[in-house]
Amino acid sequence: MNYKFSYFLNEMKPSEIRELLKMASTPGLISLGGGMPNPGTFPSAVLKQIMDNLIETRSAQVFQYANTLGVQETLDIIPGYLEKTQGFKCTPQNVILNSGSQQGLYELGKVLADPGDTIITEEPTYVGAISAFNANALKMVGIEMDDEGMKTDVLESRIKSLIKAGTKPSFIYTIPTFQNPTGFTMSLERRKHILELSNSYDIPLIEDNPYGELRYYGNKVPPIKSLKGGDGVLYLGTFSKVMTPGLRLGYTIAPTEVISKFNLIKQALDLATNTFSQYVAYEYIKQGSIYKQVALNIEMYRKKRDIMVNALEEEFRDGSTWSKPDGGMFVWLTVAGNVDTKQMVGEAIKNGVAYISGQAFSTTGGQKRSMRLNFTYGDDEQLKEGIRRLSKTFIKKN
Amino acid sequence: MNYKFSYFLNEMKPSEIRELLKMASTPGLISLGGGMPNPGTFPSAVLKQIMDNLIETRSAQVFQYANTLGVQETLDIIPGYLEKTQGFKCTPQNVILNSGSQQGLYELGKVLADPGDTIITEEPTYVGAISAFNANALKMVGIEMDDEGMKTDVLESRIKSLIKAGTKPSFIYTIPTFQNPTGFTMSLERRKHILELSNSYDIPLIEDNPYGELRYYGNKVPPIKSLKGGDGVLYLGTFSKVMTPGLRLGYTIAPTEVISKFNLIKQALDLATNTFSQYVAYEYIKQGSIYKQVALNIEMYRKKRDIMVNALEEEFRDGSTWSKPDGGMFVWLTVAGNVDTKQMVGEAIKNGVAYISGQAFSTTGGQKRSMRLNFTYGDDEQLKEGIRRLSKTFIKKN
Repeated sequence: MNYKFSYFLNEMKPSEIRELLKMASTPGLISLGGGMPNPGTFPSAVLKQIMDNLIETRSAQVFQYANTLGVQETLDIIPGYLEKTQGFKCTPQNVILNSGSQQGLYELGKVLADPGDTIITEEPTYVGAISAFNANALKMVGIEMDDEGMKTDVLESRIKSLIKAGTKPSFIYTIPTFQNPTGFTMSLERRKHILELSNSYDIPLIEDNPYGELRYYGNKVPPIKSLKGGDGVLYLGTFSKVMTPGLRLGYTIAPTEVISKFNLIKQALDLATNTFSQYVAYEYIKQGSIYKQVALNIEMYRKKRDIMVNALEEEFRDGSTWSKPDGGMFVWLTVAGNVDTKQMVGEAIKNGVAYISGQAFSTTGGQKRSMRLNFTYGDDEQLKEGIRRLSKTFIKKN
Repeated sequence: MNYKFSYFLNEMKPSEIRELLKMASTPGLISLGGGMPNPGTFPSAVLKQIMDNLIETRSAQVFQYANTLGVQETLDIIPGYLEKTQGFKCTPQNVILNSGSQQGLYELGKVLADPGDTIITEEPTYVGAISAFNANALKMVGIEMDDEGMKTDVLESRIKSLIKAGTKPSFIYTIPTFQNPTGFTMSLERRKHILELSNSYDIPLIEDNPYGELRYYGNKVPPIKSLKGGDGVLYLGTFSKVMTPGLRLGYTIAPTEVISKFNLIKQALDLATNTFSQYVAYEYIKQGSIYKQVALNIEMYRKKRDIMVNALEEEFRDGSTWSKPDGGMFVWLTVAGNVDTKQMVGEAIKNGVAYISGQAFSTTGGQKRSMRLNFTYGDDEQLKEGIRRLSKTFIKKN
């Protein structure tokens, strides 16, 4: 049989991350590559108690199909959770529960743009967003960043030149807080600026905030959606980092007219999100366990973040630079000299350490000297040893 | 904010099924509309024991991200399950686990065709397939059916005329066993014919088999994929009817070159299927509980099928016709006289009964005199009373 494959697939590359997750099972290899939470943060005892109770009291509901938008109790409890943790108000009618935040990203690209449309992202940006946007044949224009996040003055001039050229972007996608892959957090001033640009040029703004709950240092910077004029912002959240990723539960907050379109496309995508996971998340919030668990996660991850940053300070005294994130899961390392981190992956693995090269996160094939390092998954000794092996790989070369 | 919505959405209509699921909660309303399993078939005690055990012994794995194709143990156990229940062989490399079979349908439309391409389905066909294909802007050509399934002689002449007109179909989609919505089962002769057509015209054949395990009467007709020459057939299965739908787990069996494309698109769609559900399904098969539960389901549903068919025989003596399915979940009722079942939905609900009108399942807006009736969800007395209310709605009108 000769299969005719869709042209959409031409845009897509097998994710290096998936490859590295497989390699992570190589004996002795320390993987700083994946984006996985530490299993020590999984609230197993609490989940077991919640699940047992749900099965004993509500099995006819928790195992049945759910509505496409979500289980009503879970839709109802999200606004209160967000008001408490993110400081903005919404109603249950503004919520859709998704099979992980990745599905929210795919829905965005499918609903808010046509194939061939141009959208704006950070450069670099989350590899899963690139994948979702490529699958919808969108053209990404990446805006450079520094340690205060996306450079919104560059954004402004780029919007102007795109509009002048007749290519109004369909939306702007940003991960302003503890960005993946850089760990950078957008300053309040730039948050105000990006929101102003979105509103004045009438370009929808998407705020992806998977790590917002995980702050280890510094004062909270309010989500863009919580700022004055932020009502139209679309906001993506997830339970992957505050409950477990395996239960695959995320959500998008949007104006009701947009939610109704997400509803339509989600019927085609997978009918409905896992009912059981939704009820579990509902109980997990209702009982308040989520707040206790996140406090524990922060304690564990702050220490791991320090271990990695300290190890980099000790091992990379060659002019390399790295981010010093106040939260989240990632450090962005840019190696000194003329190095291609993608070409070096094999050498690094020979030395017993894996990472994701910067190119995977680039909208242009750039970021060649950089790499993303994850500090949440490894145990403390592995993080130190991983950075030692990295320095062995890179510093002797320069 | 003015949102620009994708042109794909123009093809899509809010599913009447979703609307009816909501109505199903109206007090006193008997819904024969949904496609839900009976909660009495949920193996709650078994699932509780499996879940408890998984959390106690493997929490670091069962709550973590899974590989995109699926959890290895679950991928490994599917071929043996299919050989035993469906009589065909495949390897773990031919399997992808999906977030419900609906996701498998969406992947099909996305991977094996480009927007604007023509595909072939039965007429009528599953509303979720129509939704998935519309979301990918595919043109459906529906082939008429009788109680031996899709008329493959009509299929053959349609393929010829399409090819002659320069429009080779990208694939053929069939639900040969206890079809949704008709309940019809394709005869062995026609199965051989459709497979021969697929192979000789080099058009991929998709066999969707969500109800295959649920046979109440008659001898098993082998899946098309198990026939000689069926190696290239893509096969869709699900745990929704043999475990629970709320855990959202389905699978597609395909040649490895196609699996690698599904892998690529699923990374963009939702990264990976719910890990916990996959481990639960693995244990559920491994322990053999699935076979015991399906035997119980068959007993319950055979009785409900008889209740509905008998009630139709008693109540509809006006020349109306209906299918007498040997398995599955649905009866297809075609009402006598010049009636539009869609226009009658409101009247039926006033009389306290809901159904899905035939139009929802039509690729052409036809099937106006027909409706799909579900016999698995309601309790026995509701099924009888539901048919009585239906006859009250329709027969006085003729």
